[in-house]
Amino acid sequence: MSKSTVLLIGSGAVGTMAAYNLEAVLKTIPKVEEEGLSPFDYILVATKNTPDIPPTVADLVASAVTPGHTAILLLQNGLNIEKPLIQAFPNNPILSGVSLISATETKPGSILHDAPDDLIVGAFTNPSIPQGTSISSAERFVEMYSASGKVKCTYDADVGAVRWRKLIYNSSYNSICAITGMDTSRLRIAEHPIEEVIRPLMREIWTIARKAGHEIPEEVIQKMIDIDPLETYFKPSMLQDIEKGNYIELENIVGEPMREAERLGVPAPGLKMAYGLLRIMQWKTKERRGLVVLPSKEI
Amino acid sequence: MSKSTVLLIGSGAVGTMAAYNLEAVLKTIPKVEEEGLSPFDYILVATKNTPDIPPTVADLVASAVTPGHTAILLLQNGLNIEKPLIQAFPNNPILSGVSLISATETKPGSILHDAPDDLIVGAFTNPSIPQGTSISSAERFVEMYSASGKVKCTYDADVGAVRWRKLIYNSSYNSICAITGMDTSRLRIAEHPIEEVIRPLMREIWTIARKAGHEIPEEVIQKMIDIDPLETYFKPSMLQDIEKGNYIELENIVGEPMREAERLGVPAPGLKMAYGLLRIMQWKTKERRGLVVLPSKEI
Repeated sequence: MSKSTVLLIGSGAVGTMAAYNLEAVLKTIPKVEEEGLSPFDYILVATKNTPDIPPTVADLVASAVTPGHTAILLLQNGLNIEKPLIQAFPNNPILSGVSLISATETKPGSILHDAPDDLIVGAFTNPSIPQGTSISSAERFVEMYSASGKVKCTYDADVGAVRWRKLIYNSSYNSICAITGMDTSRLRIAEHPIEEVIRPLMREIWTIARKAGHEIPEEVIQKMIDIDPLETYFKPSMLQDIEKGNYIELENIVGEPMREAERLGVPAPGLKMAYGLLRIMQWKTKERRGLVVLPSKEI
Repeated sequence: MSKSTVLLIGSGAVGTMAAYNLEAVLKTIPKVEEEGLSPFDYILVATKNTPDIPPTVADLVASAVTPGHTAILLLQNGLNIEKPLIQAFPNNPILSGVSLISATETKPGSILHDAPDDLIVGAFTNPSIPQGTSISSAERFVEMYSASGKVKCTYDADVGAVRWRKLIYNSSYNSICAITGMDTSRLRIAEHPIEEVIRPLMREIWTIARKAGHEIPEEVIQKMIDIDPLETYFKPSMLQDIEKGNYIELENIVGEPMREAERLGVPAPGLKMAYGLLRIMQWKTKERRGLVVLPSKEI
């Protein structure tokens, strides 16, 4: 296997695991053309994806991308994350990476990794280049990433199904934990949150996914409900972000699935409410960071 | 006008304003029969109403009620609050008091009262006694309460309409502020919470109220959105309760309207989600108060 150059951007929980696996992280994003560097074969983007808060992922990676050459692998959650990248880089393969690790950044630089790494890679459809080019690029990355022997990395052609499947967990648990400040174990111990909030939300996502053509088995809902080990009191990423005062990835995790539902004519009232509430949480973070100016208070 | 004996129970914000008006509060609930006391003509109940957390209002007042004599005025929020009282005291008038003051208990015993007091009184329907008896009892209370000249107290025969109208505010703003930790002014300044969450919830309540036979003008929705002076950054009662570590009145403010919607066949998905989330908030308060035992944590 020939050697590839990989640029990894983002060193939170997921990115650090990737770095450990690839044995390389850069601190700043290189300007390939300006600095006369050799083109990167891959850029692995493991940053948070918050299109509502600049800079966008496309802006972030731009200076490191060689048009027509570099494959951009988005190791990020949610739906339609490839759209702005395809628009910005119409001649580059855009790849999908869905991480099934449950890595947690307990404090900056300290990653708790309590489950086996498992990365599912596939190719998004970039209409300007042959799909075969994108698929080869994805397959080559899988080969290279698996070579370490430390991790399981699998190619899956059905990127949509992989992403919708993870959304069943993320749109429900991740949202509700972020809104209420509860971990997934407490929601299950209390029981009523599962039947009143989590399961109905998961069912909405599952229904939208079906309508979008992804036949995910119905049993996945129960499997996702029980997926975190009960004794870990796991806090999904958006709750971790809120506790750290960081912005949350609400647009791709909740906003885009909600918009898909609208496009497909599937009712998604729970998702709409979750979206509205998460936008309030995001606004609170903006206020905390001084991005909101309030009229003065009388009392 | 002959003199009536009034027992006031509950001395939070609303109760203290009533005490100021009636010039009398008792610290403990008397045992009328056991202690050989004269019967109370009225019991004014201004406690929080949390049927999911014992004791119930009926249990609380029982020893002070003289069957067939005492009128019980429930100065409390929400729907169907009279049902358990009618069951416990089938031969007593049960009266409705809806307070339109925006009194806030800033710290224990310190009440900020920044709007004119305005109490709407009416009679619930107790099927075992003539409705005329209940109505006379309500009218007599209005006369007595107004006598101080300090407050506006009005009789309104349509108790249902009065309560549903206030629910338009309470089921939406009060719920969402409690869930998100935001005051009503910030929700309006951010704007999107109004259009994405508050207005849709208000519309659900308005629709259920209509289906239940209460023709509330549609303009009330916009009026309720703008009702708090923007400069007061008002925190509705359930948010105040959460900040104080108190239980919230979620059953009568959200649970009962949601159940009415189910009975009437009106879709109320927003209300259902709000209810599920508020139950999570209530569970957190229970945990904080040591009423929940968690399995031990592994990490």
